[in-house]
Amino acid sequence: MAIAFPPSITLRLRPHRLFSISLFPTITPTILSNPILPKPLIPPTNLSFSSLQKWKCFCTLISPSGEDFKVPQSIDSNVKVGHFRKRLRILDIKGTPDEGLDRLGESLVIRGWVRTLRMQSSVTFIELNDGSCMSNMQCVVSSDAEGYGQVETGSISTGASIVVHGIIVRSPGTKQKVELKGHKIVMVGESDSSFPIQKKKVSREFLRTKAHLRPRTNTFGAVARVRNALAYATHKFFQENGFVWLSSPIITASDCEGAGEQFCVTTLIPTSQEALDSSAGVIPKTEEGLIDWSQDFFGKPAFLTVSGQLNAETYATALSDVYTFGPTFRAENSNTSRHLAEFWMIEPELAFADLNDDMACATAYLQYVVRYILENCKEDMEFFNTWIEKDITSRLNDVAVKDFVQLSYTDAVNILLKANKKFEFPVKWGCDLQSEHERYITEEAFGGCPVIIRDYPKDIKAFYMRQNDDGKTVAAMDMLVPRIGELIGGSQREERLEHLENRLDELKLRKESYWWYLDLRRYGSVPHAGFGLGFERLVQFATGIDNIRDAIPFPRTPGSAEF
Amino acid sequence: MAIAFPPSITLRLRPHRLFSISLFPTITPTILSNPILPKPLIPPTNLSFSSLQKWKCFCTLISPSGEDFKVPQSIDSNVKVGHFRKRLRILDIKGTPDEGLDRLGESLVIRGWVRTLRMQSSVTFIELNDGSCMSNMQCVVSSDAEGYGQVETGSISTGASIVVHGIIVRSPGTKQKVELKGHKIVMVGESDSSFPIQKKKVSREFLRTKAHLRPRTNTFGAVARVRNALAYATHKFFQENGFVWLSSPIITASDCEGAGEQFCVTTLIPTSQEALDSSAGVIPKTEEGLIDWSQDFFGKPAFLTVSGQLNAETYATALSDVYTFGPTFRAENSNTSRHLAEFWMIEPELAFADLNDDMACATAYLQYVVRYILENCKEDMEFFNTWIEKDITSRLNDVAVKDFVQLSYTDAVNILLKANKKFEFPVKWGCDLQSEHERYITEEAFGGCPVIIRDYPKDIKAFYMRQNDDGKTVAAMDMLVPRIGELIGGSQREERLEHLENRLDELKLRKESYWWYLDLRRYGSVPHAGFGLGFERLVQFATGIDNIRDAIPFPRTPGSAEF
Repeated sequence: MAIAFPPSITLRLRPHRLFSISLFPTITPTILSNPILPKPLIPPTNLSFSSLQKWKCFCTLISPSGEDFKVPQSIDSNVKVGHFRKRLRILDIKGTPDEGLDRLGESLVIRGWVRTLRMQSSVTFIELNDGSCMSNMQCVVSSDAEGYGQVETGSISTGASIVVHGIIVRSPGTKQKVELKGHKIVMVGESDSSFPIQKKKVSREFLRTKAHLRPRTNTFGAVARVRNALAYATHKFFQENGFVWLSSPIITASDCEGAGEQFCVTTLIPTSQEALDSSAGVIPKTEEGLIDWSQDFFGKPAFLTVSGQLNAETYATALSDVYTFGPTFRAENSNTSRHLAEFWMIEPELAFADLNDDMACATAYLQYVVRYILENCKEDMEFFNTWIEKDITSRLNDVAVKDFVQLSYTDAVNILLKANKKFEFPVKWGCDLQSEHERYITEEAFGGCPVIIRDYPKDIKAFYMRQNDDGKTVAAMDMLVPRIGELIGGSQREERLEHLENRLDELKLRKESYWWYLDLRRYGSVPHAGFGLGFERLVQFATGIDNIRDAIPFPRTPGSAEF
Repeated sequence: MAIAFPPSITLRLRPHRLFSISLFPTITPTILSNPILPKPLIPPTNLSFSSLQKWKCFCTLISPSGEDFKVPQSIDSNVKVGHFRKRLRILDIKGTPDEGLDRLGESLVIRGWVRTLRMQSSVTFIELNDGSCMSNMQCVVSSDAEGYGQVETGSISTGASIVVHGIIVRSPGTKQKVELKGHKIVMVGESDSSFPIQKKKVSREFLRTKAHLRPRTNTFGAVARVRNALAYATHKFFQENGFVWLSSPIITASDCEGAGEQFCVTTLIPTSQEALDSSAGVIPKTEEGLIDWSQDFFGKPAFLTVSGQLNAETYATALSDVYTFGPTFRAENSNTSRHLAEFWMIEPELAFADLNDDMACATAYLQYVVRYILENCKEDMEFFNTWIEKDITSRLNDVAVKDFVQLSYTDAVNILLKANKKFEFPVKWGCDLQSEHERYITEEAFGGCPVIIRDYPKDIKAFYMRQNDDGKTVAAMDMLVPRIGELIGGSQREERLEHLENRLDELKLRKESYWWYLDLRRYGSVPHAGFGLGFERLVQFATGIDNIRDAIPFPRTPGSAEF
């Protein structure tokens, strides 16, 4: 076979075809001045695509021959990567305003996992879920459907994955507007009868031991989707407001955080399986018997970060507004429903900003993400409202529209002192507020409205917070919300070099460790402020989930790092 | 002062005001049935906001008196948190199609850091940058401007932060369309003369030692903005296609990854400052002299994750399509320009999907993010095109529009065997492809077009990859791109329980460790596939930055975990 192409065509050639080419350079000044011009009028034996691109050419294609390896099918007919198509999901059908009625009569294929199966005399109802939304697709199949035998033999059972081909019809039931009248069932994966998530209700404690299967339940599917929506809304809020996302480091040899309870990251202990059988003697020692850190991966002790804030400040003082969204760690031995050893934090940092800007940003952020899930996760939020926390949607609606209240720490203490309530921890000016105090203020004193407390005593706050003129307090703020207590904590940072150095001295922190942090105050220091938000607390706040271990896919707590 | 309100008004009361209230319950069935109805016709002494909400009332407000603490200003006049307003940035002015001409005559305030300062006889030009874009705002100030003295004394110098008030005027220069005619300069933070980023060019090696200041340079500012855009585009792509973001765990006691070089995470070694002076004897031992892991935080050895894939599979087999975007770790002692000990990975996982779906998704993803930065980061990409890698924008344009090529590993080996090129590592079927081979294929054999190689020998790929029918290869794929080589690696996962168990046996991996991973094949297994992408490699690919340490804010490499 030989084909001649006109000179206007640029031919895309497949590799490993023999061909002969007559090359006619497109005469343009660029190509004339190209040093490779004189060479290739005799086609090079190893002609590469890139050199071909420089030529318009007549080309004769000769059918394959003389090849010393088989040209596989994939090159021949399948050389291009196919197009990616979003697959049809149950959400796409049932999540429309019409709840699927717009698709009446359509022939569709649904893939998913069997939630329940009800066999009746003439038909079988299969509730199929694909995780795209809480709703199942009710598939109605009668005994003449192809593959129905698998229903009868029991191989299609709760937990099995199947594909159902059918037609969307109006549902006579009241629970949904449409259902799928199936004419073909294809078994994909059976479910062993030991499947632990059967129809009967299982406890959340039990499901924590099945963290790999729990997203197949209504509750954890909904938590996963709302968690996802909160994360995306977080990015959207900050991106729309011109913030730059920053990955702050996870491993750090910087001991800036001081006393925090940190995890050590090391390669001094042999990794993986071997670790279990390691002699304690393998740890390298110096002559004095100390741990020889020079032999560790980073040449000195390194830890998991407890906060990305100090790093975020370095970027804020270059790019103006930034935020982090990444994991942080506490090696705190707290086995409570409020603590995780590994959790995700969102830490925005604003340049040329004071505490008022900070509070305004925190408020706008929280209202944005709450509105986002109320608008975008209606079905899941309805579920939480009914089954997890009564009236959560109206509580969140309040947060989305109410003005947040601010008051000083001093006022907050006075409110607590006057409260007609006995607290476990007594209150006096200078004390740290406990969860019971925080919840009293937001839930009772301000009737469910989020409250920001500002201007805390400097002695209970971190060294980097900006000193107020009273000499006693710092420009810190905590946002308190009902049920959770503190959700957000932030501050204006001390931008004055001298004040910061004095504070480090007062706290007996080593200034040398902070050289780079102090540099930010040496070179074009600016007023700046930021806050931190524990993402799992936000998930709890938004879903009503009690235990923080249910707000993250794979919780890490003392004694537990499974999966 | 006494005010009477009509009954239709719900009054928002401030705390700590004395007031007398006449309460007239709104008579509705709900409230009539409310058990608290009979009580509060005499106003309670400790009236909380929440109880008030249940009433419409006449209310008389009495001016403050008898309060036993001073009502601070903040409660009085400032009780609401202010509104968050996006601040005017240089990007907002110069990033419009008119490049600022639409604002001629506007009085504006610009905040930023001085990049350069040129004093001329009559005026001084200050190039001010706020990090929102690469462009500086040229501020022209003459000696009659307020605060000009600070220019003359030299306190406004490179690196200093200032605020300039002025008017937008047409710029007579050719570099920009508008400039700010300043009439007032406010010094915010001086810059010590030791500021290491002066006008003269500094090397990227040097800047790595100043990771806290390098985002103030053109190059690292641009890298930070493009990195941010790539991250956001990643979320947008997956969210728009119905994927759920999943946080896979960072710390894991699961030894599923097998031989990987992992960091150990422990609290057996005292944390923070103390670590440096720890005796090696502090490590708790069992009676046999082994490390006593039962005393560690998680009760057994725990490590930093090398991949979130196995965890992502658990969610994909519940929610259909998911993706992770988080940090991963390798304790590999590679001091190269291609390796980091800590890097971010994107790992999507698609249910009811095979290798073709996987390749199509990876291709669509890469094209989406590349298009996104070409459209949204024009100025930064121009900079890379001019200063970092000639023609990077046309290379990326190609990627955005060209069809990607796929070919089998076997074909790829044959191409390499026939290549008229001497490779450092010789090629034969069964060998792992090296970077030089990968780059030859994408850069030379396919002239700069991204290439996906599929169906690798099973012996060089991971245990979880799906075996092809030939018994020799697995449904794996690597996407190769010019300059980088492998950018994306993925596979269809082995969804058949028996095949997977056999493979674990063959590789002498302990099945008990994989109990939860195997469960996914016991209960409703589905064909599924996914891929992994090293985010910093993507940043390199998109910016032309040579060294991966310049593609992440704070690189972690052997011997280095500063900042």
